[in-house]
Amino acid sequence: MRSIYLDNNATTRVDPEVVEAMLPFFTDQFGNPSSTHAFGSPVGVAVRKARRQLQALIGAEFDDEIAFTSGGTESDNAAILSALEVMPDRTEIVTSAVEHPAVLSLCAHLEKARGVKVHRIPVDRHGRLDLEAYGTALTHRVAIVSIMWANNETGTIFPVAMLAEMAKKIGALFHTDAVQAVGKVPMDLQSTAIDMLSLSGHMFHGPKGVGALYLRRGVPFSSLIKGGHQERDRRAGTENTPGIVGLGKAAELALKFMDDENIRLKSLRDRLEKGVLQRVPDSFVTGDRLERLPNTANIAFQHVEGEGVLLLLNRSGIACSSGSACTSGSLEPSHVLRAMDIPHAVAHATIRFSFSRDSCDEDVDRVLEVITGIVEKLRDGSRSRPRG
Amino acid sequence: MRSIYLDNNATTRVDPEVVEAMLPFFTDQFGNPSSTHAFGSPVGVAVRKARRQLQALIGAEFDDEIAFTSGGTESDNAAILSALEVMPDRTEIVTSAVEHPAVLSLCAHLEKARGVKVHRIPVDRHGRLDLEAYGTALTHRVAIVSIMWANNETGTIFPVAMLAEMAKKIGALFHTDAVQAVGKVPMDLQSTAIDMLSLSGHMFHGPKGVGALYLRRGVPFSSLIKGGHQERDRRAGTENTPGIVGLGKAAELALKFMDDENIRLKSLRDRLEKGVLQRVPDSFVTGDRLERLPNTANIAFQHVEGEGVLLLLNRSGIACSSGSACTSGSLEPSHVLRAMDIPHAVAHATIRFSFSRDSCDEDVDRVLEVITGIVEKLRDGSRSRPRG
Ligand SMILES: Cc1ncc(COP(=O)(O)O)c(C=O)c1O
Ligand SMILES: Cc1ncc(COP(=O)(O)O)c(C=O)c1O
Repeated sequence: MRSIYLDNNATTRVDPEVVEAMLPFFTDQFGNPSSTHAFGSPVGVAVRKARRQLQALIGAEFDDEIAFTSGGTESDNAAILSALEVMPDRTEIVTSAVEHPAVLSLCAHLEKARGVKVHRIPVDRHGRLDLEAYGTALTHRVAIVSIMWANNETGTIFPVAMLAEMAKKIGALFHTDAVQAVGKVPMDLQSTAIDMLSLSGHMFHGPKGVGALYLRRGVPFSSLIKGGHQERDRRAGTENTPGIVGLGKAAELALKFMDDENIRLKSLRDRLEKGVLQRVPDSFVTGDRLERLPNTANIAFQHVEGEGVLLLLNRSGIACSSGSACTSGSLEPSHVLRAMDIPHAVAHATIRFSFSRDSCDEDVDRVLEVITGIVEKLRDGSRSRPRG
Repeated sequence: MRSIYLDNNATTRVDPEVVEAMLPFFTDQFGNPSSTHAFGSPVGVAVRKARRQLQALIGAEFDDEIAFTSGGTESDNAAILSALEVMPDRTEIVTSAVEHPAVLSLCAHLEKARGVKVHRIPVDRHGRLDLEAYGTALTHRVAIVSIMWANNETGTIFPVAMLAEMAKKIGALFHTDAVQAVGKVPMDLQSTAIDMLSLSGHMFHGPKGVGALYLRRGVPFSSLIKGGHQERDRRAGTENTPGIVGLGKAAELALKFMDDENIRLKSLRDRLEKGVLQRVPDSFVTGDRLERLPNTANIAFQHVEGEGVLLLLNRSGIACSSGSACTSGSLEPSHVLRAMDIPHAVAHATIRFSFSRDSCDEDVDRVLEVITGIVEKLRDGSRSRPRG
């Protein structure tokens, strides 16, 4: 039985072309790009190329607006902590209730340890941001707004360009966690008021452990990790050169395939959703049906446990997830679905199918083949053992 | 002309066996180890194996005392910032004047931004720590002592086990930046009072962009990077699984080869030093001749510019460095040599040759072949253009 991977919002397979691009930087061009000798300088050239590849993917105006980091979580932490430091007379953060833990855990910590006031803007039943609440929270006390581009669980896309304009008016910095959006939707950052953006390589067929922080020229910044002068003093530490080269290559490939892939993924995803909803009574799609990533389907199945569906899908060779990878293992229903005011029992029973360049028609066929049986089996079981 | 790499304290070539071990985790076992499905769990097993390989290398009592990070700089920052947070009633740091920028830049920042008092313990002409000054600085106001195991420029080894005992007596945490020592000298952390230790993969033939923080069980800790629950809440962010697996393999190989390699490297290094000192008048070895890494030779050449020597060595196909890689590019003499009270003109003119498993007799031969000519040429030049 072929294994089917539909958990691409947790991580993606590294593209073999990306691995190919990385390989010379382990054993051949292994020098430290900070070194001035013959082993170092060519590596510096490769790092600059990667910077331009990322610049192209996100539509930044200058390549030096990209600082490489160890991933999305570090980038998120760096952006928010920097803002508090460079704007010491502002002590509030505006974020959403459905951010990734990389933002929400940090905010909770800052609230507790430093008395920072955090506004968590709510969302409606469809996962759409409450724009009125957002407008109200925006005051001159706000140092930074951090709102994600696309949600990792539902795929819902927030109108970040507009949100950034609004933040700009009150002089707050605007950061967006675009870990789920970069490589999946077209971007032209230079035409927006977004000051900072986080991205992570492993979400678009690049390597794990490498990401970047986009930092608009002129935006004041204080680095999270202090040390040497790497990355123009924005991120100390010997550069992860194979990772950076791989990230660059992944950016190039994502850009090259994006238009065609998005049409293809959307059709795969839509066929999956339609097929499941037709076959399984009392199932529905969560999140904004219009503004969302083309690759993500989050489907709720009433009267079952999500963990049970997941397990039986796994036994049928299909890998997907319930809630985000970071919180799986715990049985708490996802904070994203709770924020959407979806009843507890249903939030508990949602499955995320997320597609990528590696996904194909047969993956959808296979899910549709097994899903009815799985849900029926679990519903039969739970009907005989009713729970509160 | 074969290129000769004698800059192994800046970075090392990744061992081909390490690359081999990493490869499956890019395209085959690419799952997120936090995922509970079939793509995730085997990767979690590989991460645990790497933890045990590192545990063995540093002689930690438990494998869960290892938290993976993005490298030495992050580990250093995490250790020091955590100590200030978990010991809020203590506001002083004790460190040495010859630490890496990963420690010194952070300390300078904390001094300026947070009013933390930093004691930078001086060293003598041979790079040895001033133990009297150290004893004096140790008071109940000290949250953390951060003293390196081995110096990256001179190779001088500090008596960290004893220093840790002294720190323990006053209830301060003891951290050591062992980025240059791990994989080069035997360690048995469980027999010491060291609370935290930083290491970096690329210094012992592992990949760049991955390292670890050793954290003794029971030592209170607050993570630098907040987010998901990875690494038992000590380091959030999707794990760099190929990097971690590579780091583990590099640890295994370092341990396996250590005893034999240390004898071999010491003899290469000693032959280089002896040969250079015999051939080049007014040259001498800096640092502690007894307590030092077996792979490092730091040689001062009077009456020349280090940058000139470096350049001509590079033209002869020999890569080495003057000062640490992180500060090269700037022409300031190294803070390490200045702290040793070596006259400015001489500090300016020191070259670091650093060996590794990849080094061989011919590398030494080649240096000895060209060094006399290079220094003579530069001295002739500078004699005709005397400078202040
Ligand atoms: C929306 C979002 N932000 C941030 C992250 C964290 O990225 P990383 O795991 O690369 O640190 C993730 C990862 O799942 C994510 O989905
Ligand atoms: C003594 C020492 N500490 C810390 C570091 C920083 O390690 P990394 O560059 O892996 O972040 C280095 C790197 O050169 C070092 O030599």
